Amino acid sequence: MPKKVAVILSGCGVKDGAEIHEAACALLAIKKAGADYVCYAPNKPQHDVVDHLKSAPTGERRNVLVESARIARGDIRDLASFKVSECDALVIPGGFGSAKNLSDYAFKGAGATPDPGFAAAVKAMHAAGKPVGAICITPAVVAVVFRGTGVSPTLTIGTDPGTAADIEAMGSRHVECPPTDCVVDEANKIVSTPAYMSAAHIGEVYEGVCKLVKEVLRLA
Amino acid sequence: MPKKVAVILSGCGVKDGAEIHEAACALLAIKKAGADYVCYAPNKPQHDVVDHLKSAPTGERRNVLVESARIARGDIRDLASFKVSECDALVIPGGFGSAKNLSDYAFKGAGATPDPGFAAAVKAMHAAGKPVGAICITPAVVAVVFRGTGVSPTLTIGTDPGTAADIEAMGSRHVECPPTDCVVDEANKIVSTPAYMSAAHIGEVYEGVCKLVKEVLRLA
Repeated sequence: MPKKVAVILSGCGVKDGAEIHEAACALLAIKKAGADYVCYAPNKPQHDVVDHLKSAPTGERRNVLVESARIARGDIRDLASFKVSECDALVIPGGFGSAKNLSDYAFKGAGATPDPGFAAAVKAMHAAGKPVGAICITPAVVAVVFRGTGVSPTLTIGTDPGTAADIEAMGSRHVECPPTDCVVDEANKIVSTPAYMSAAHIGEVYEGVCKLVKEVLRLA
Repeated sequence: MPKKVAVILSGCGVKDGAEIHEAACALLAIKKAGADYVCYAPNKPQHDVVDHLKSAPTGERRNVLVESARIARGDIRDLASFKVSECDALVIPGGFGSAKNLSDYAFKGAGATPDPGFAAAVKAMHAAGKPVGAICITPAVVAVVFRGTGVSPTLTIGTDPGTAADIEAMGSRHVECPPTDCVVDEANKIVSTPAYMSAAHIGEVYEGVCKLVKEVLRLA
């Protein structure tokens, strides 16, 4: 049986949802590694809708699950139905959706709170000893999830000093890493890669994400 | 100087726009081959907006260029500004956007008409002897563009008999091809691959698209 990787999406588009290249690279890396994926997203309104041409909010209302379904080609589940027993590993692409819809990290930094369903999924994977892969800004959101729990994962978001300081302020540890590599916390089974936090192009994103997926599947 | 590939997008999502996996795989394949890409899309309303969870139209209005900008991370140009002199090759991902926004093939089959800007771009590339790569359903839209012109490219959309018959009815030639390969029309410099017309998963899409990009760059 191929290993099954849950992928949590946060919309569709870097400025208000899941980063599309990172999400597609994750799905591709999972299939190329011989595993299968199952996509999930929270069924709730997006924090906002951003015109990706003008980088300005449009005032529209869109739903995170419905827009995430674009990346998943319609084959996606409500995050409320997530069960740790139904997957071997969890991978979460980045994009502002991670910082706006899976948490409010985009607005509150180290004082952020996570989406309850997202926090429950990540904590349940950790408690079950199953690996979690966090891409781009998502490691900061993982730090939000574990703040105050006594769990102190080692994470990377690349080199951005402000985000790294937030991660440390929340009680996690940050180490620098190029976008073509990943950081593995063996004890907590948490793997992270910077992706577009520092990648120059989609080729670098794919290289780092492939390494992350390989490590996540090794730990699964 | 790396070769420059224009990529024409038709929205963001398989059911009403550009197929996201195919678009991301094309951008990745172009970068991995050492070339650069420049994205374009027509600046006009989408034919429709489809809820990708329910597969039902929503009645919303969205713009093809603005939604395509999600795939391009904001770095995209109006197709009206397309100049053959500014690129070495052209690649067009599939998705219903190709059949709804770059043409009305989804509704009129072999009697379809193309978007004027799209038709002008494809014809200008052909006239300049520069290669065109067409993915998924887009080869049928290329056949729409060349119907009645005396140009009769050899194309593939995989094995779907109805679409193949439409391509032949429009004066192009169809040959069968698996999704992990591509068909090269050397004389017309048009390369096509079936992608999700028959691919079982994103890994097969990427394999076929990598071969298409390699052939397109060889012809450039």
